[in-house]
Amino acid sequence: MRYELYYWGSIQGRGEFVRLSLEETGAPYVDVARTDGGEERMLALLDDNTLTCPPFAPPFLKAGNRVIGQTADILLFLGERHGLAPKSDAGRLWTHQLQLTLADLVVEAHDTHHPIASSLYYEDQRREAKLRAADFIANRLPKFLRYFERVLASNPSGPAHLVGARLTYADLSLFQVVAGLRYAFPKATGRAAKQCPNVMALCARVAARPRIAAYIASERRLPFNQQDIFRHYAELDR
Amino acid sequence: MRYELYYWGSIQGRGEFVRLSLEETGAPYVDVARTDGGEERMLALLDDNTLTCPPFAPPFLKAGNRVIGQTADILLFLGERHGLAPKSDAGRLWTHQLQLTLADLVVEAHDTHHPIASSLYYEDQRREAKLRAADFIANRLPKFLRYFERVLASNPSGPAHLVGARLTYADLSLFQVVAGLRYAFPKATGRAAKQCPNVMALCARVAARPRIAAYIASERRLPFNQQDIFRHYAELDR
Repeated sequence: MRYELYYWGSIQGRGEFVRLSLEETGAPYVDVARTDGGEERMLALLDDNTLTCPPFAPPFLKAGNRVIGQTADILLFLGERHGLAPKSDAGRLWTHQLQLTLADLVVEAHDTHHPIASSLYYEDQRREAKLRAADFIANRLPKFLRYFERVLASNPSGPAHLVGARLTYADLSLFQVVAGLRYAFPKATGRAAKQCPNVMALCARVAARPRIAAYIASERRLPFNQQDIFRHYAELDR
Repeated sequence: MRYELYYWGSIQGRGEFVRLSLEETGAPYVDVARTDGGEERMLALLDDNTLTCPPFAPPFLKAGNRVIGQTADILLFLGERHGLAPKSDAGRLWTHQLQLTLADLVVEAHDTHHPIASSLYYEDQRREAKLRAADFIANRLPKFLRYFERVLASNPSGPAHLVGARLTYADLSLFQVVAGLRYAFPKATGRAAKQCPNVMALCARVAARPRIAAYIASERRLPFNQQDIFRHYAELDR
């Protein structure tokens, strides 16, 4: 079976968390919206009234007959199927808890450039973005990164992974969030990074994993850009 | 075993989703922060460096030795343990997907009154709140409620529940979100409600369930208030 990932074809966005897990498992998948007519098929599926489990928004994953939406839910599914989460009930829920905390951070990072409405341009909410970003880089970004540093330091199996002694989807997602923050807020993230050596070491190890390294070097990995969740506006960084 | 719920003792907030599920199951629990010295114990636990699975923020649930954070993760746990979600893999993930979409709506509802920073007062971001709330009630609130209406209409077991033919934690959470929206934005929610009869009927049925009705009539149910996620500022409604 080949998975079908449905997500906007021009950005990493939330789809990137799914792409990274799929790439790491080596599972065959097609990134539908990057194929001919794929984005139209994605939009048609979103409006398909015959679906019994309709997704609210991309990303969603087709796995055979099933359609699964919500990034964290897709990862819960892939994690169980492909060994990207512990089998134990406690380990599985802990991995998911970390993913949900990363998801909270992603929303906050997005809202730095769109604090008023996603439907408006950045240029129409620039003043508000400056206020929101100032709070984000002063308070929220360091708080979140210090939290993940604490999780690594508290792991009884050592600081090489967030959960236990093996890679989970939460490790892959932390890598992606830190990469996005480095792109969007190089100065603020650089400062916070100095206090989070275990986080930075984990991210470097994830980037060096053979399948992840191959993916990042490929055309399948879209570059960060100014339509994405993580955006670099120099005036928002400090 | 008695569960210990850790959440702010003066608001419904995100803890309310956990409270509703606990109340519906009839599982014994203590709402720690509402007991003498409880809030201090909650804060101490958040800073406890001996925890191997530290939560990022309240709510979190102690179940024996385990500490589980993130509202949706707690519900995943309780849903499996107490029959508030289907046993099948597909049904379990679908229920969770709906919960995550409700969680997205909760963030957006919160940010209508705090679009710039949670650390600032509403009065310091009133102008921005007006802009964000206008977009929320014009676009986002109706879109989310119509989505849940569609989910109910698409349920092969009928529109009485979001998932299958039995109550799940997603039903309880939808009830809570709609109650919050009715409090915060009575006019806008009233308008959207007219297009969502199945959602409204489900919420009425949840409110009438014996354990939920008893809970809502009790002192355990805190009233909505202006320190909470859902707040009523007449100037933000329309």
